[in-house]
Amino acid sequence: MESTPNVAQEGPLAGYRIIDLSRVLSGPAATMLLADQGADVIKVEPLDGDITRMMGVGRDGMTSGFLNINHGKRGVALDLHSPAGIEVVKRLVATADVFVQNFRPGAAAQLGLGVEALRAIKPDIIYVSISGFGDVGPYAGKRVYDPVIQALSGLTDIQADSDTGRPRMIRTVIPDKTTALTAAQAITAALLARARHGRGSHVQLAMLDATIAYLWPEGMINYTRVEASADRRLGQVAQDLVFKTVDGYITAGAMSDAEWRGMCAVLERPAWVDDPRFNTTAARFIHARERIAATAEVLATRTSAEWLAALDAHGVPCAPILSRAETLVHEQVLANDLIHEYEHPGLGRVRQPRPAARFEGVRFNRQPRAPRLGQHNAEVLAELGYSNDEIAELARLGVIPSGPPPRTPEATSAG
Amino acid sequence: MESTPNVAQEGPLAGYRIIDLSRVLSGPAATMLLADQGADVIKVEPLDGDITRMMGVGRDGMTSGFLNINHGKRGVALDLHSPAGIEVVKRLVATADVFVQNFRPGAAAQLGLGVEALRAIKPDIIYVSISGFGDVGPYAGKRVYDPVIQALSGLTDIQADSDTGRPRMIRTVIPDKTTALTAAQAITAALLARARHGRGSHVQLAMLDATIAYLWPEGMINYTRVEASADRRLGQVAQDLVFKTVDGYITAGAMSDAEWRGMCAVLERPAWVDDPRFNTTAARFIHARERIAATAEVLATRTSAEWLAALDAHGVPCAPILSRAETLVHEQVLANDLIHEYEHPGLGRVRQPRPAARFEGVRFNRQPRAPRLGQHNAEVLAELGYSNDEIAELARLGVIPSGPPPRTPEATSAG
Repeated sequence: MESTPNVAQEGPLAGYRIIDLSRVLSGPAATMLLADQGADVIKVEPLDGDITRMMGVGRDGMTSGFLNINHGKRGVALDLHSPAGIEVVKRLVATADVFVQNFRPGAAAQLGLGVEALRAIKPDIIYVSISGFGDVGPYAGKRVYDPVIQALSGLTDIQADSDTGRPRMIRTVIPDKTTALTAAQAITAALLARARHGRGSHVQLAMLDATIAYLWPEGMINYTRVEASADRRLGQVAQDLVFKTVDGYITAGAMSDAEWRGMCAVLERPAWVDDPRFNTTAARFIHARERIAATAEVLATRTSAEWLAALDAHGVPCAPILSRAETLVHEQVLANDLIHEYEHPGLGRVRQPRPAARFEGVRFNRQPRAPRLGQHNAEVLAELGYSNDEIAELARLGVIPSGPPPRTPEATSAG
Repeated sequence: MESTPNVAQEGPLAGYRIIDLSRVLSGPAATMLLADQGADVIKVEPLDGDITRMMGVGRDGMTSGFLNINHGKRGVALDLHSPAGIEVVKRLVATADVFVQNFRPGAAAQLGLGVEALRAIKPDIIYVSISGFGDVGPYAGKRVYDPVIQALSGLTDIQADSDTGRPRMIRTVIPDKTTALTAAQAITAALLARARHGRGSHVQLAMLDATIAYLWPEGMINYTRVEASADRRLGQVAQDLVFKTVDGYITAGAMSDAEWRGMCAVLERPAWVDDPRFNTTAARFIHARERIAATAEVLATRTSAEWLAALDAHGVPCAPILSRAETLVHEQVLANDLIHEYEHPGLGRVRQPRPAARFEGVRFNRQPRAPRLGQHNAEVLAELGYSNDEIAELARLGVIPSGPPPRTPEATSAG
């Protein structure tokens, strides 16, 4: 039996057990957040592993992409198409508080792991179903992937090219990750309700719904009033405030009149303070394109450091635009003690961010490990009461892996 | 005293009271989600109102932008620079479970509303501090706005132009909204811990941290291994899978070999199945640019409907790329009963999405209202035990508003 130093011993979710059959990102990132807060998350994978074990590079069934959404969990690998494998899941559920799956609608029930089947084993289980599109409707049975939700939710319309109107994708999986955060909150809320009233729940969440709800606050501001054609004159709330300098890029923006006066002083354009195109918040909004172009022209003439110092001195919100490599070592990121480094099996030295929300007096796990495929099979099965002989028999029957884990893309550099 | 039909009567957070002094988006969107789940959220605004009352158009201190992040709450307006106003907040806190603020670090304590002051009144309060950058470090005291966090977090680097490398902003406020979701989960987790152990907590969250943690799973995959220059050959995970057709735009993508065979059949390019540039997942990844360009060329020759029908028939994930107006009436969005319409004071007929996560047996409020500035002053003060005479005196002293609410941008169209 292997030890589990990777399970956090503290945090608001300590003492809860989550059985997670979800794949890829929307479910796994949700349960990782809960593992970070102390939950005992047991990730159940098929014998060929979650596809994210192929994301990035690594060794022995471990990759950087897998680590980033599965750290702090224990891992069990099972043949989910065998009765003995399903029996293991059911025995796990009997010991658990939460069960999470993101199969296509109906697939969990076909495996024998539907809501009613699991309630028969654990009446107060919190059963979580994450889907791409919802349980009914013309898309319910379709395979989901992130760009599809971006396309349907209006996100690509929000990001459309200002000049040509051509829709554009966001290069990070907003629908997947927003669904994960929404799911983590919903699971926590269901645990809270159960702690107070003793009842479990079936929590259902569609990526499409989570994404539209996420976009809504300002992204759909012009569609909030049904009779609102006039709203559209307000255009996009967010603008592309990226300014090129002599040696890089910065962002800067003046919302209030005071900030605009500061901006004019920094740019050495005192006449713009009272210019009727720019002298009120509304005027600056209406003439945004003109204002940004004029600002860009001036900002192109000096270095980022010169401009940032001057903008700061005049109270204009601003920042350097960082590459990801620069973000990692930025002075504020360092001050926040956000990113920690440690050795991880199969990967060498890795970086992970700590959980963003900090709870007073609660330490976070500074070295959370992600499980190799089936790493905790023996440990977890023993906890469930399986004898060594029974475990050996499951391996002999191919219900659990017996050989080494499948290969992953090998790192070609050090580590 | 006014009635409060807008406070949900059910949901996992029913029975909890949240006093929310936060402004703009990161805090208010968090507490709106909790209001949607049944919490009694009392939004405390300064006498001139949250700046989001100026977002969008509306009447009587109500706008579409304000509604979208404040529905389902009650509203109190107070002079927070007067001792009598602070006294009202303290009496509210004495009745509450959660206190939320997103002032700059130190500002709440200066108002007399720091952690220790509120603990003296309510020892098990959950005190939530949301900041832009964190409490320490060179940026701690700076004014935050969304593009600044996009610039510092690496988000603009992820979205950078593939050809020129020029960083690009995302046109929706990812840092604000991600912080809101992260905060909502953290508040719920702190309530859960308190329900079990009886202890409150100070929950701290910085937008910068929440955004970097959100980007991490795949956005930072190439920076996860410290010695990982080789990872970068894998490039961006997400690609701009936007294809122009004769009459619009669609997205489509083939991950597996089976999907690629389907794609080749639809495109009528059977030779691509065994083409060494495309015949494995890895090869398709390495030759992504070539593959996407070749695919785009073919897809440009027919209508969206023709392609989508054929792609669907061949099991290739695909979708139309919708404008926001099209999203509202898309068949799957309608099937999900996601967006509901109702009459709202000051706005006319409005649309709102229901909460994305659904809890079995819990109905959601189909007509959540946002409060006018100070709408619930009399009601809430009476609940706290203020007499009518005392309330009148507070109005006379200017601690609470006595006149009509300030004007907001007027709708020029119907409604």
